[in-house]
Amino acid sequence: MLSVKTPDEVMEIIKTGFGLLPGFESVGIAEALGRVSAEDIVSAEYVPGFDRSAVDGYAVCASDTFGCSESIPAILTVPSGPPGISRAASAGGGFCVYAATGAQLPPGADSVVMLEYTEDYKDGTVGIEIPVAPGNNVIFKDDDLSPGDVVLRKGCLITEHDTGALAAAGITELNVRRKPAVGIISTGDELVEADKKPNPGEVRDVNTYMLAAAVSSGGGSPKTYGIVPDDEKKLDAALGRALSECDVVLISGGSSVGAKDAAARVIGSRGEILFHGIAMKPGKPTILGKAGGKPVFGLPGHPVAAYFVTRLFVFLLLDCLTGRERPEFPVRAVISEAVPANHGRAEYAAVKLRKDGDIIRAEPVRFKSGLITSLAATDGYICVPRDCEGIAEGTAADVTLWRH
Amino acid sequence: MLSVKTPDEVMEIIKTGFGLLPGFESVGIAEALGRVSAEDIVSAEYVPGFDRSAVDGYAVCASDTFGCSESIPAILTVPSGPPGISRAASAGGGFCVYAATGAQLPPGADSVVMLEYTEDYKDGTVGIEIPVAPGNNVIFKDDDLSPGDVVLRKGCLITEHDTGALAAAGITELNVRRKPAVGIISTGDELVEADKKPNPGEVRDVNTYMLAAAVSSGGGSPKTYGIVPDDEKKLDAALGRALSECDVVLISGGSSVGAKDAAARVIGSRGEILFHGIAMKPGKPTILGKAGGKPVFGLPGHPVAAYFVTRLFVFLLLDCLTGRERPEFPVRAVISEAVPANHGRAEYAAVKLRKDGDIIRAEPVRFKSGLITSLAATDGYICVPRDCEGIAEGTAADVTLWRH
Repeated sequence: MLSVKTPDEVMEIIKTGFGLLPGFESVGIAEALGRVSAEDIVSAEYVPGFDRSAVDGYAVCASDTFGCSESIPAILTVPSGPPGISRAASAGGGFCVYAATGAQLPPGADSVVMLEYTEDYKDGTVGIEIPVAPGNNVIFKDDDLSPGDVVLRKGCLITEHDTGALAAAGITELNVRRKPAVGIISTGDELVEADKKPNPGEVRDVNTYMLAAAVSSGGGSPKTYGIVPDDEKKLDAALGRALSECDVVLISGGSSVGAKDAAARVIGSRGEILFHGIAMKPGKPTILGKAGGKPVFGLPGHPVAAYFVTRLFVFLLLDCLTGRERPEFPVRAVISEAVPANHGRAEYAAVKLRKDGDIIRAEPVRFKSGLITSLAATDGYICVPRDCEGIAEGTAADVTLWRH
Repeated sequence: MLSVKTPDEVMEIIKTGFGLLPGFESVGIAEALGRVSAEDIVSAEYVPGFDRSAVDGYAVCASDTFGCSESIPAILTVPSGPPGISRAASAGGGFCVYAATGAQLPPGADSVVMLEYTEDYKDGTVGIEIPVAPGNNVIFKDDDLSPGDVVLRKGCLITEHDTGALAAAGITELNVRRKPAVGIISTGDELVEADKKPNPGEVRDVNTYMLAAAVSSGGGSPKTYGIVPDDEKKLDAALGRALSECDVVLISGGSSVGAKDAAARVIGSRGEILFHGIAMKPGKPTILGKAGGKPVFGLPGHPVAAYFVTRLFVFLLLDCLTGRERPEFPVRAVISEAVPANHGRAEYAAVKLRKDGDIIRAEPVRFKSGLITSLAATDGYICVPRDCEGIAEGTAADVTLWRH
């Protein structure tokens, strides 16, 4: 009955099964950080918009400097008037104009000579001791942007330097993707709220808090539905409510008897099960279904397993729903302790990284999948593929960072 | 007059010059994500608090299974009563009790036999086909935490799995470091607000938006003071106001004549200049001072330069003020285009990363330091140290990710 998929198959199912959520939001650039651009943002103008000096120096017409040297400087005249940017002043034909970094080039200037290659004779003339070519030390009016240039591509996570680029182009408001609303349901008779003292046989609900935090990190907007007991009717009611209010639902299965297949039955009765089981450790008892066109994950009750599945697959789903590109570039590290072979399934292990001179070392954390504290202070994870005989001590492996 | 420091010297000055801000905030765990813990958080109890089954199976006393096999199973009796966790039921002495994953072990049980190695004879007895040792498939009451165990170390950035660990330990509120308030002042007669159309010679204020976003990313709380013209009195007044309201002030220098040294004079007149100039490119014209005990950065006006200095040194300062540990683990990548030698200063270049099979390639972005759009779509940066002759095409280099 279990239709177990490999991690790669699961990724393909998610990518092909779920696309962009409709709708977007307009936000000011001060609120755009961390959001996903909903469209290609195009410049309407030239930026900086005028030719500017890239250095402190004298704006000149390059041909006035040809052939000069330290011993035979070109003597150019400074137009009278106050120093600085003076649009009345023009360069060329034997004239030069002081131009601070960023200053607009005066008419006639096509280049700037750095201050250190000039000498101010204090008599209204300046000696130029090095020849420049046209364009030297100039930022051209279209160096940053020209009309029609893309400032920010659709699907980008908006970073702080993107914010700067938007400001430069005068774009102070833009359309971003709506954050997917993600409903979170914890099931299990043995679960109690985190602020309660558990009775014997009870444990605190870890997943509601952890998954809400993970959804925030991953670009979603979490909405929690609390703890639902092992009662199929109650679970179905909670799922119904969450489906009507959210774009995605995560049910993290209680690990007690009744909860075990209730999630699968409830998801199945409202739509279809896309797979039941992933050939990975931890995380095997994972379900993905589609109800009313919306994705519903049945996550393992064990927090570590639920965390890995969320990091690997729920994040990918959020990316599909927002059109976000999230390339991951792993850190190469030397494994300090062998990670044993696995049997027919991909094995994921959290690691702590540390620098040892120029080498980065990764210490795999041994955990039982129930133990959420084992992830504390880890920096990322390694994957031992299903057909691999484990990773030997001292071998280099790719560590994918958690990226908080 | 310039007291130029190397990047390493600057880091040392920041680390030794500025310590933890006083005070902390109490937050609920749902708001703790991304904050920095202000104290070691210690568990008051055992977690999970009781011995649990790690699998679906039968809880047994291991000695009842010794010597059994598939051909000669140990026949154990299931205590009568409903299935599931029954505290009345006990294992051992020939009895076994069904235990789902996560269920509390019944009295007398010291191990669990996985369901697949058992056979239910449907007559009140179960055959156990594999011997187990005491402790097999058991999560012990203190496996996650014991009283006194540290759940979260002081100075950690609180992650989603930390949130889970806090919930497991029943800690729903905790003390976190106060976010440093960072005042941001842009100076320069040539600057206009980002939503204005610049006149000839004017450019939009990029740094206010970019630095505010960067401060948010880096763990601070930005407070913007707008554009101040090139007028030392006005700059001094703005700095005074910012110093009275913030923990840190960033003045990003306009690049026009007057602004150039105004920041240094104004900072100096209110305290001391720690250095003026960093032997790096971009970012050389950077100032750090201390006024009223508070750090004041004079940042380059050029956005790219301001960004690099912020990422490298303002982030470090924020870490010192919050006690945050922020280890950085670079990604090793093959440089696709030579980065030329530099002359007596460290050179930083933004790079775009891409995967090429198993290899990660880094394409350095050529930029003039005024051009903020050149950072768009970059993933991180490389550093060519001051005494290095550049990085040749095809060489591997360490890329530090921006980590948005």
